[in-house]
Amino acid sequence: MKLYDFALAPNPRRVRMFLAEKGVEVPMEQVNIRERAQFTDEFEAINPSRTVPVLELDDGTCIAETVAICRYIEETHPEPALMGRDAKDRAVVEMWNRRCEFEGVAAVGEIARNSAPMFEDRGLPGVSGGVPQIPALVDRGKASLGRFVERLDKRLGESRYIAGDSFTIADITAFIALNMAERFELAIPDSCANVARWYAEVSERPSTQA
Amino acid sequence: MKLYDFALAPNPRRVRMFLAEKGVEVPMEQVNIRERAQFTDEFEAINPSRTVPVLELDDGTCIAETVAICRYIEETHPEPALMGRDAKDRAVVEMWNRRCEFEGVAAVGEIARNSAPMFEDRGLPGVSGGVPQIPALVDRGKASLGRFVERLDKRLGESRYIAGDSFTIADITAFIALNMAERFELAIPDSCANVARWYAEVSERPSTQA
Repeated sequence: MKLYDFALAPNPRRVRMFLAEKGVEVPMEQVNIRERAQFTDEFEAINPSRTVPVLELDDGTCIAETVAICRYIEETHPEPALMGRDAKDRAVVEMWNRRCEFEGVAAVGEIARNSAPMFEDRGLPGVSGGVPQIPALVDRGKASLGRFVERLDKRLGESRYIAGDSFTIADITAFIALNMAERFELAIPDSCANVARWYAEVSERPSTQA
Repeated sequence: MKLYDFALAPNPRRVRMFLAEKGVEVPMEQVNIRERAQFTDEFEAINPSRTVPVLELDDGTCIAETVAICRYIEETHPEPALMGRDAKDRAVVEMWNRRCEFEGVAAVGEIARNSAPMFEDRGLPGVSGGVPQIPALVDRGKASLGRFVERLDKRLGESRYIAGDSFTIADITAFIALNMAERFELAIPDSCANVARWYAEVSERPSTQA
C-alpha cells in the first residue's frame, strides 16, 4: 500500500490522523499540490478528480476520497473502531461525520478557496484554472462555520465525543475543520464552551501530530 | 421505522430509489420543505441540520444524511448489495459515490439553489433565510456539471456501471443528479455517448419511479 499525501493539506491530514489512531503505518508519497503536481497526466491516471489523498493498494487499485480510504482502513484494521461497532452505531457515526464534512470542512474550504492568493483562479479543488474566486463565499462560509460550531456546541453538551461516548472519525473531521479555521483567525466563540472543552481534549491526542 | 420524506426533493428520492432496489418498504411521513416544515422546533429535535431525509428507528434514534440512511438499510438488508461486497469493493463504491455527490449532485444543487425563485434568500439547505443567492454560482455549477459528465463518460467507457459490473448506490446518485439537471434543461451532451447509454439503461429500472 502507498498513500499519496501532501503534508500541508487538510484532507490527507484526516487520513494520517485516522491511521495514527489505528497505529497503522503506510508509506507516503508527497504530491506537491501547491506546485500543481496533481495536474499531470501521470496523476490523472491515479485520480481523475485530481485530489489527494489517494490510497494505492498492492494490486494497483487506487482509492480516492478521504472517507473511502478511512473505511478501507477501518475494515482491514478494525481496532480501535473509529466508524462504529454495529449497524446503528455506524449510521450515527456516518451521520455526524457527514455533518462535520458538509457543514464544517466545506465551510472552511469555501473561505480558504475564495480568499487565499494561492487559489486565485482555482476556486474549486481539482480544477487547474478558470474558476474565479467569489468574495461573497468568504462571508457565506464564515456564517456557515458559525452555525456549525453552534450546533456542535449543543451536541457536545450532551456527549463526550461528537458521535457518542467514543472517539470516532467524526471527531477527526471536526477537529481538522476547526484547526483549519484557526489559521484563518476564526477562533471558537466564547459562547461555545462545550466545543472548547472537546477541542482542548482532542488537541492532546498524539494523532494530531501525524 | 419511519422515513421523513418529501416527494419532490432529490435527496429523499435517492433513499426511496435505494429502498426500491432492495425491495424494502418503510412507512413515510411527508415533511413539506416548500412550506418550511423543516424549520419547526419539532423537526429540529428530529434533525438539527433541518434537512430530509431522516430515518427514525424503532428505538427513536433519528438517522439523517442520505448515505448514512442507505448504509443502515444496506447492513440490515444486505441483498442485493448496493454498496460493495468486500472491503476493496466497498471502498471503490464509496469513492465513486462521493465523486457523484460532490461533483454531480452538488453542482446541480448549486445551480438550483442560486437560481430558483423558491430559494430566494435561502442559498443553502437547512437555513431559514439570510443566505442570498449568488448568481456567479449558477455558471460555476454548470461548468462543474460539465466536467463531471465528461469524467463520467470516460469511466462509463470502461465499465457497465459507475463502480464496476454491478449497479450500486453510485449509479443512483449520478442518476438523480442528471435527472435534476434535466429539469434545468441541462441535457447530456452529444459527445458523452457512454453517459447517454448508461442513463437510458438506468431510466428503465422500476426503482426510478419510487
